[in-house]
Amino acid sequence: MGNDSWSKTEKQAARRAFDLAYRRECEAISGEVRRQAAAIIGPDDLWGLHNFLTQQRKETDEKYDYRYSQLEIVFARLVVDGWLQLDELAGLAKEKLNRIGAIVGWAAERDEG
Amino acid sequence: MGNDSWSKTEKQAARRAFDLAYRRECEAISGEVRRQAAAIIGPDDLWGLHNFLTQQRKETDEKYDYRYSQLEIVFARLVVDGWLQLDELAGLAKEKLNRIGAIVGWAAERDEG
Repeated sequence: MGNDSWSKTEKQAARRAFDLAYRRECEAISGEVRRQAAAIIGPDDLWGLHNFLTQQRKETDEKYDYRYSQLEIVFARLVVDGWLQLDELAGLAKEKLNRIGAIVGWAAERDEG
Repeated sequence: MGNDSWSKTEKQAARRAFDLAYRRECEAISGEVRRQAAAIIGPDDLWGLHNFLTQQRKETDEKYDYRYSQLEIVFARLVVDGWLQLDELAGLAKEKLNRIGAIVGWAAERDEG
């Protein structure tokens, strides 16, 4: 996986999908931040929100890994987690889409099993 | 400074004033957090809020130092910064209040100069 080269068109499509998912996930985190911020009563809640943000930042930094060698598994995970639709990866080569689809399918089977 | 012993009554008064200031400052930070959270448009704003909270946590951790050897300077700083009124330190021994008042007065002179 990830040994294929990426054409210029594919790179553009990948960047677009990657940024779209990242933006969606950050919007979801922002919604939770607003919810927690509104519910702050004392210092513990305030620093609890800081802990939450620290954790989210760590997780997103790890997850949104734009190395081409990692992108297929990154995209598969984003689809499984609901941040991307498979059809939003249009523009990638068929072999890449097939591999991504296979990982997604395998994950779905595991969830059902 | 800080070489005097602290009676039980003084310790209670100190704890009360310390917690009061801490709570006030955390409330002010929380207000700013709510403001920034409401204004998040993209990922940069989200992580900017995280940076802000990290900085605030570091500063308050350093500032709210409850060692008795540090408390007079801590209280003076809290008064200077507006988180405490001098009369909210009632219960501390007169010599301590005099020293705290002297530091506050000195800081005020510097600000004027």
